[in-house]
Amino acid sequence: MNKTIHKLVLGALLAGSLNVAYAADPKPEEEVRYRQSVFNVIGRSCALLGAFVKGEKPYDQAAAVKAANIVASLSTLPFGSFGPGTDVGTHKADPKIWSDSGKFKQAAEDFQAEVKKLPAAASSADTLKAQFGAVGKTCKACHDDFRVKDKK
Amino acid sequence: MNKTIHKLVLGALLAGSLNVAYAADPKPEEEVRYRQSVFNVIGRSCALLGAFVKGEKPYDQAAAVKAANIVASLSTLPFGSFGPGTDVGTHKADPKIWSDSGKFKQAAEDFQAEVKKLPAAASSADTLKAQFGAVGKTCKACHDDFRVKDKK
Repeated sequence: MNKTIHKLVLGALLAGSLNVAYAADPKPEEEVRYRQSVFNVIGRSCALLGAFVKGEKPYDQAAAVKAANIVASLSTLPFGSFGPGTDVGTHKADPKIWSDSGKFKQAAEDFQAEVKKLPAAASSADTLKAQFGAVGKTCKACHDDFRVKDKK
Repeated sequence: MNKTIHKLVLGALLAGSLNVAYAADPKPEEEVRYRQSVFNVIGRSCALLGAFVKGEKPYDQAAAVKAANIVASLSTLPFGSFGPGTDVGTHKADPKIWSDSGKFKQAAEDFQAEVKKLPAAASSADTLKAQFGAVGKTCKACHDDFRVKDKK
C-alpha cells in the first residue's frame, strides 16, 4: 500500500472508529463537554480519595496512588477549554471566568500546584489526608468564585 | 442461576477483573455519564496523537507522551461503569455489552493491552504511528461490535 493511501485508510479508520474531530480547533460545545468530562473524571477519583480520607473505605495504597495520579495528570486539561466563545450550552461556568480571567488563572494554578503533591502524598493514609485537605481548599475556592450553583 | 444473581455476579466479575471498583455506589445515570466522560477525555488525547500520526501537527514528543499517558491511565476506568442497570438514559452502548459480556470483556482487554504500549511508543514519531494503528484497531473492533451508531 503506498504511503498516501495508507495514511488515508488509517485516518478514515481512526476518524470513523474514534468518532472524534481531528480538527485543531474544537467547537465551543465540544470544549464545554470536554472540560465537564475532565472534571467528572477528576471528581470520581477525588470521591474515592475522599472515601479513604473519611474512613468510608479502608485505605488502599495502590488504589489511592492510582486515583491521585489520575487527578494529577488531568489537572491541567480542563483549563484550556474555557476559551473565548465557550460560554455556550448548559454549564455551571460563572461569567467571571471570562471577566476576571487573571483570578481564574490563579485559581487553576493553585489547584494544579496542590494536586501535583497528591500522588506522593497518597502513599500513606496520613499524608493523603493532609494533602487531600489542601487540594480540597483549592477546589472550593475556585468553585465558590467561578462555578454557579445551578446549571444555566 | 437466577437472573438477579447472575447480574450481580456479572457486575462483580466485570468490576473485579477489570480492576476498576471505584466510588461507593454511583447511580446508573452517573455511571453512564462517567464512562462517557472517560471516553471523551481519551478521545481528545487520541485526536492529538492522530494529528501527529497524520502529520496535521508537527510531532511533539512531550505532548505525545503526555497524551499517551492519559490514554493509558484512563483505559481501565470506563469498563467498570457498564454494570447491570446502566443501560439507561441517552447513550450508544449496544445491548450486546450485557448479553455477550465475555466478548465485551475481551474487547476491553485487547484495547487495554495495546494502550499500555502507547506511552513508550509515543517517544518517537515512527513508533507512535505503528502503535497508534494497533490501538485504533482495538477501538474500531469494540465500536463495531458494541457501540450503536446513533444515541438511543
